[in-house]
Amino acid sequence: MCGIVGVYNHNHAAILAANAMFAEQHRGQESCGIAVSDGKVIRLRKRMGLVKEVFTPEELEKLHGHIAIGHVRYPTRGTSTEFNSQPHVVETLAGPCYSLASNGDIVNYHEMRQILEDKGVYFASSNDGELILKYIIYKVEYEQMSIVDAIKCCMRDIKGAYSTVLATRYELYMFRDPYGFRPMSIGKTEDNSFVVASETCALDIVKAKFISCVNPAEIIVINDKGIRNIENDPNEYRTVDYAQHCIFEHIYFSRPDSYQFQEDVFSVRERIGVKLALMDNDFMPDLVVPVPDSSNFIASGYANFKKMPVTFGLIRNHYSGRTFIKSEQSIRDESVSHKFNVLPHTFKDKIVVLIDDSMVRGTTIKKIIAIINQAGAKEVHLRLGSPKVKYSCFYGIDTPNKDDLISNRLTIEQILDDFKITSIKHIDLDSLLNCVCKPEHYCHACFSGKYPIE
Amino acid sequence: MCGIVGVYNHNHAAILAANAMFAEQHRGQESCGIAVSDGKVIRLRKRMGLVKEVFTPEELEKLHGHIAIGHVRYPTRGTSTEFNSQPHVVETLAGPCYSLASNGDIVNYHEMRQILEDKGVYFASSNDGELILKYIIYKVEYEQMSIVDAIKCCMRDIKGAYSTVLATRYELYMFRDPYGFRPMSIGKTEDNSFVVASETCALDIVKAKFISCVNPAEIIVINDKGIRNIENDPNEYRTVDYAQHCIFEHIYFSRPDSYQFQEDVFSVRERIGVKLALMDNDFMPDLVVPVPDSSNFIASGYANFKKMPVTFGLIRNHYSGRTFIKSEQSIRDESVSHKFNVLPHTFKDKIVVLIDDSMVRGTTIKKIIAIINQAGAKEVHLRLGSPKVKYSCFYGIDTPNKDDLISNRLTIEQILDDFKITSIKHIDLDSLLNCVCKPEHYCHACFSGKYPIE
Amino acid sequence: MCGIVGVYNHNHAAILAANAMFAEQHRGQESCGIAVSDGKVIRLRKRMGLVKEVFTPEELEKLHGHIAIGHVRYPTRGTSTEFNSQPHVVETLAGPCYSLASNGDIVNYHEMRQILEDKGVYFASSNDGELILKYIIYKVEYEQMSIVDAIKCCMRDIKGAYSTVLATRYELYMFRDPYGFRPMSIGKTEDNSFVVASETCALDIVKAKFISCVNPAEIIVINDKGIRNIENDPNEYRTVDYAQHCIFEHIYFSRPDSYQFQEDVFSVRERIGVKLALMDNDFMPDLVVPVPDSSNFIASGYANFKKMPVTFGLIRNHYSGRTFIKSEQSIRDESVSHKFNVLPHTFKDKIVVLIDDSMVRGTTIKKIIAIINQAGAKEVHLRLGSPKVKYSCFYGIDTPNKDDLISNRLTIEQILDDFKITSIKHIDLDSLLNCVCKPEHYCHACFSGKYPIE
Amino acid sequence: MCGIVGVYNHNHAAILAANAMFAEQHRGQESCGIAVSDGKVIRLRKRMGLVKEVFTPEELEKLHGHIAIGHVRYPTRGTSTEFNSQPHVVETLAGPCYSLASNGDIVNYHEMRQILEDKGVYFASSNDGELILKYIIYKVEYEQMSIVDAIKCCMRDIKGAYSTVLATRYELYMFRDPYGFRPMSIGKTEDNSFVVASETCALDIVKAKFISCVNPAEIIVINDKGIRNIENDPNEYRTVDYAQHCIFEHIYFSRPDSYQFQEDVFSVRERIGVKLALMDNDFMPDLVVPVPDSSNFIASGYANFKKMPVTFGLIRNHYSGRTFIKSEQSIRDESVSHKFNVLPHTFKDKIVVLIDDSMVRGTTIKKIIAIINQAGAKEVHLRLGSPKVKYSCFYGIDTPNKDDLISNRLTIEQILDDFKITSIKHIDLDSLLNCVCKPEHYCHACFSGKYPIE
Repeated sequence: MCGIVGVYNHNHAAILAANAMFAEQHRGQESCGIAVSDGKVIRLRKRMGLVKEVFTPEELEKLHGHIAIGHVRYPTRGTSTEFNSQPHVVETLAGPCYSLASNGDIVNYHEMRQILEDKGVYFASSNDGELILKYIIYKVEYEQMSIVDAIKCCMRDIKGAYSTVLATRYELYMFRDPYGFRPMSIGKTEDNSFVVASETCALDIVKAKFISCVNPAEIIVINDKGIRNIENDPNEYRTVDYAQHCIFEHIYFSRPDSYQFQEDVFSVRERIGVKLALMDNDFMPDLVVPVPDSSNFIASGYANFKKMPVTFGLIRNHYSGRTFIKSEQSIRDESVSHKFNVLPHTFKDKIVVLIDDSMVRGTTIKKIIAIINQAGAKEVHLRLGSPKVKYSCFYGIDTPNKDDLISNRLTIEQILDDFKITSIKHIDLDSLLNCVCKPEHYCHACFSGKYPIE
Repeated sequence: MCGIVGVYNHNHAAILAANAMFAEQHRGQESCGIAVSDGKVIRLRKRMGLVKEVFTPEELEKLHGHIAIGHVRYPTRGTSTEFNSQPHVVETLAGPCYSLASNGDIVNYHEMRQILEDKGVYFASSNDGELILKYIIYKVEYEQMSIVDAIKCCMRDIKGAYSTVLATRYELYMFRDPYGFRPMSIGKTEDNSFVVASETCALDIVKAKFISCVNPAEIIVINDKGIRNIENDPNEYRTVDYAQHCIFEHIYFSRPDSYQFQEDVFSVRERIGVKLALMDNDFMPDLVVPVPDSSNFIASGYANFKKMPVTFGLIRNHYSGRTFIKSEQSIRDESVSHKFNVLPHTFKDKIVVLIDDSMVRGTTIKKIIAIINQAGAKEVHLRLGSPKVKYSCFYGIDTPNKDDLISNRLTIEQILDDFKITSIKHIDLDSLLNCVCKPEHYCHACFSGKYPIE
Repeated sequence: MCGIVGVYNHNHAAILAANAMFAEQHRGQESCGIAVSDGKVIRLRKRMGLVKEVFTPEELEKLHGHIAIGHVRYPTRGTSTEFNSQPHVVETLAGPCYSLASNGDIVNYHEMRQILEDKGVYFASSNDGELILKYIIYKVEYEQMSIVDAIKCCMRDIKGAYSTVLATRYELYMFRDPYGFRPMSIGKTEDNSFVVASETCALDIVKAKFISCVNPAEIIVINDKGIRNIENDPNEYRTVDYAQHCIFEHIYFSRPDSYQFQEDVFSVRERIGVKLALMDNDFMPDLVVPVPDSSNFIASGYANFKKMPVTFGLIRNHYSGRTFIKSEQSIRDESVSHKFNVLPHTFKDKIVVLIDDSMVRGTTIKKIIAIINQAGAKEVHLRLGSPKVKYSCFYGIDTPNKDDLISNRLTIEQILDDFKITSIKHIDLDSLLNCVCKPEHYCHACFSGKYPIE
Repeated sequence: MCGIVGVYNHNHAAILAANAMFAEQHRGQESCGIAVSDGKVIRLRKRMGLVKEVFTPEELEKLHGHIAIGHVRYPTRGTSTEFNSQPHVVETLAGPCYSLASNGDIVNYHEMRQILEDKGVYFASSNDGELILKYIIYKVEYEQMSIVDAIKCCMRDIKGAYSTVLATRYELYMFRDPYGFRPMSIGKTEDNSFVVASETCALDIVKAKFISCVNPAEIIVINDKGIRNIENDPNEYRTVDYAQHCIFEHIYFSRPDSYQFQEDVFSVRERIGVKLALMDNDFMPDLVVPVPDSSNFIASGYANFKKMPVTFGLIRNHYSGRTFIKSEQSIRDESVSHKFNVLPHTFKDKIVVLIDDSMVRGTTIKKIIAIINQAGAKEVHLRLGSPKVKYSCFYGIDTPNKDDLISNRLTIEQILDDFKITSIKHIDLDSLLNCVCKPEHYCHACFSGKYPIE
């Protein structure tokens, strides 16, 4: 995951960026950073931790400037260190003058890095944002290319998912890979600041009005002459005819109040719930219970279709943080009872439909089912808002090794037995794709194994 | 508010206490502390901050012992400093050997403190927990009273609300004021540890089975001879015939998955929702929307009765923390947009019933209504799960000065005008009391002005 | 070692104490602390580190009060932790109301601690200051003794060296063990503040005029009625007829500008130098070089007697701190080259008399000699201002185990061979004692093995 | 002042550098830094504070590499911030690949900085080291010059004092301004590491043998082919025929055990003492007392000539650190009594010659004289090892504004009166210059106003 933001033309660009990043905090809690330009120099602050911890009012005050880019990180490539956090900055004799933040994952990272290293380019991190930045700036500084041309070269050479913001001392660039894997939207505030973000909920928090998505392969530049969209045909760079949006953004990643890939996320989820309900025409549950909060709208769709209420039978403790004990295994055990508790006297002798968005390793849902069984449920029917996850993602989602995926490890029967539940159903891929308007514009490699890029 | 916990007979009593406190974190986020005894000496750690910040595994390891008491603090009396956080410890030549944590508020604090100070007793804080502790230990150390007798004296002399745990080096005492204002329950784990807590959700998290409430005026001692309940007639100490439980625990304070004052909290809330729905037989809303998360179950009650779904039209950002900007006024403005966002395309031209638990100052709900109006709602009807709050609480709730209460400042018509809403209704006191089994056992001074203690 | 200070009747007693402690910093660099009373409560701050690090202006401002006691610690008994640092404070229901700091070492520590522990007294440290404090306060609080009587009991029961200050909330007590092992002087400032300290240089720094030493077994009380000396015959408590001052205070511990045991320290050292010069009537050195700074005045005495100048051929780097490398052995190697360098072109082909105050383990002096030899010296004659150190000290000096003392490990011939020097001479004990006015008033157990207390 | 070091060809170059910097700590205590290259990338650590505080073993371990440069800073140009501390590093797409540390002061700083800024070069600090580095790297990166040629250009364009080390990822360069204002020596260890430093005492501490000074305008390169001295005639760059070494290095700055400008520093000081003694043929003092430690050898010279001993009547407390109190004025008052105390019973009725190296503002010496007078001295004769300081230095010494110099503010008579002393004498400039072998090779602008560069 990860989330990016960009701000142009605001006196306190860093404060706007921090607000937008706070709205995207669910996309990454490991580290965060803001780079800001005042027209003369780029200042950077990045640290491990949450946005509100890293960016106190005192720190934000030091980041003067009218252009800002920001990033919240969920670790994909590279270890958990400040080095691998974003944005990255490139310094020359002219000072720190380019910075970049990107959301996604590069498929040919090692190959491209080697090519640049052979030319004498230095890498401080193993993060793909740095690769994109160094690639572009190498073209600009050593091959006298314009930034726009360098970005076009990048789209040709660097394969993978990237929704990217790049700030120079004077301009803000934004662009998205030709497949459009990760979302990216642009908005404008009443006082004419431009804001770009991974999710529209980040535009909402700073009261920026949604203008449009950044299209696959599109390059947008904002500078003191205004905003300029550079036409750039994505089909020149890709082997498929359509965009390949990540379907998981709708199922799980994006906030329900975001508008992604031209869909209301919560509506897609409600439609998924309806599809699941349609599969259950053979029995009537007593309770429809979501695993909060990610599955709430899938459960609404299911329950509304069944003309019954959603029961919030699992109470989630939103105070988070590390575990109290040290041993590795205990950590995982503790983490579920820390997060969820059951409503008293609610599950006793009930037929429960338990709704979750997806099942990857299956460890958490197994423990949730255990506490529901312990609460006396008669039957537990697990319904999942996504097909079986059978393949790793190489475009920005942190999925485990194929062998650790429960759908590759166990049959449905084995899972029923292991989890001690009555039934389990996944939405099928066709039904899922029917929940969005343009099914062919989506990547579903994690379910189907059909990877748009090798 | 505030929350307390106590643990007896566990090898890692401090870890159990920390877990239980984490489940009570919603009752106080300002500071927290644990005092632990290993039979020889009492160790204390308390700090400003959340339980998971203050009690890292490293810190918990240092707190060996089989008896622990803990406290999470929401500031009532006393400034926000470590001094005023709890537990308190009393030291003598025999070392640090008594510690105490209490939830509530003392009415005759200044008078009682003066009496003790005149006898040479020192106070390090202005916190009522310290008063109770010093009072009891003075009786024990200087008047050779037993601890149980000293607690009985305390019930006679010290007026107010207190649900209290007291640990010596060998024993754990727990007791509750004769009115039983604040909740307190006791449970037992499979391996025979006793756990006492403000809420049963704290028993659940450590897998302790609920045994019973601690009754008003009851004193319970646990030591190596087992658990002993000391009969103590509350009517000897109080001027009313019944307990005076805080009705606000059901409306707002307690977690919905707790069982308080012999009621399931979420059920009381659903009943409140039904009462509110019964008041609206003159129109049919398009959407029933709770202010999450405290009003979710009131909204369920309302919507279920109306045979319509709850719409989660307000999305709450659970990542919290300080504001990004410094100026006082801006803080409050930012805080609402930081916490809540509307679902896109949901409110447009809709008749909305907006459900909240209570209205104290009215500042937050006003801003929430503003963003709903901005989202295009046709009508907004505000429904409140509590009567008008017109009086300050002196028994443990941090209510503002009477003059700041919106119900004392504005008439309903003025509020409609100020908030720009169509209608506003509070549940009436009788209906509210009908939602619990024993209405006469509750304190409702904040609504009625009928204070059980002067 | 260690150093103590006390201040009575100054608006900023803690600042005066900190200044005095800074002047005594050479007596202990491990930790330091100040306890201060404002007449109502005693506040304590103690930490590992130097006085100027621990007591910033901000910290001193928090320590209001007109009575202060302070301590700088060089570790003798107990591990290097804050617990073992001084002053200690005793808390009762009346608050933190007694505090004490002591310089010295208790011989029957374990026995006395056991007696008190059997009576239920708690010990937080393994430091002898705490033993003295708890002993006295036990007598006061549980046996209703006056403080003065309790101190007298202490002198009877607790054996060893102690120069002690004790502050209550209203009074300052000071007393010294019946043998007077460690120094302690009292002075008065122009604005009528009393200051007590281990060394008179600490009186000088706060412009307090020296009044007198605190005599062996003497007890002095200062309160709002003035200063009162309680006559107390030391012979009632000791088995020898005279005081037993530590002769090493003159040789090494005290600062040369202090006036200790009725002698100017620098003068005693110069006399030692004369005695050493008298032993060398058989050759004329080219250079007389002290190991700076502790041996400077011994070298002056030697050189002046010989009518030749002192040569400061070893330059000392006064910036101190930890080593740059981790391995244990390397630390010691580095530490000498870090501290000392030779003047260039000075030692070449010269007959050098190298003067040091004492030789305990012999490791440092060996390395100093090596760099002098490397600088081309023709002959090196080592002269030592103290006799052979052959016995451990139990009265406050951190001497190593007997077996580690070089004088017990090697013969003079072996040392000459090992150090690669021409000759080595110690002052003999009689000559040393002739350097002070009252030889029989000194303890020289580390040289002679004659311990005044078993 | 400030001090620089450079290390080439050592496995732990940073540890060697830290040791050498520790020996130069007297040249600057404000901040310090080390940049190290492992052949691939340059790592930098710089912080406010002393060498031993900033460079713990843990920090040094992170600085792997075989080339290191280091700097200790005494603030001259620029405010006291980490930005202005040295070394500086220049980063390009090839990573952080040039670093530089310099000791001195640039006369045409503003002019040269403007020229570079006009070309787009960015300055992060207002420190002259950064100017030299950016100047050279601009020539190298944008004008394709060799580093050696760029340094030669620098000598032509940049006017002032600089003894400089420059490290690339592979090589170590060192060079000195054509006037040779500040010292710089090179040495070699037994295991073939090269070490360069401001003072030879820094070579001693790492057991490097002195090879030679770096000559004015000389450029030395060390790389894997060995050491190479580039001949470079200083007269091409300067308007005077000789070097212009800073005479104050001998009087005060350098450590007495250093060999600077082909003189033993302590010997020059002793010769200064002799000159002062020659001026006092009209009376015989009782005591010759230096202000320790900087004037010790001047006093030796004086006393030895008079055939009398030096008396160390002022004892210096070497534990340093901030003051204990906040108010500005008090700070200065406290600082003298904190640093110096008098020996007891020593000054009474004595004729004292007090020796100091120089008198700039005169504030400290005035307070020292006050405590000597208070100790009962009959006469105090102040003798100063330098002529009257009447002009500001622009080549690396932090002298105050001309108007604050005591020699410009008061006549000798006024000083006698103000200080309450009997006589005062400065060495005259000719006598001072006679203390060194090549008088015409020295800058004495601060005394004479004859500035070698405008």
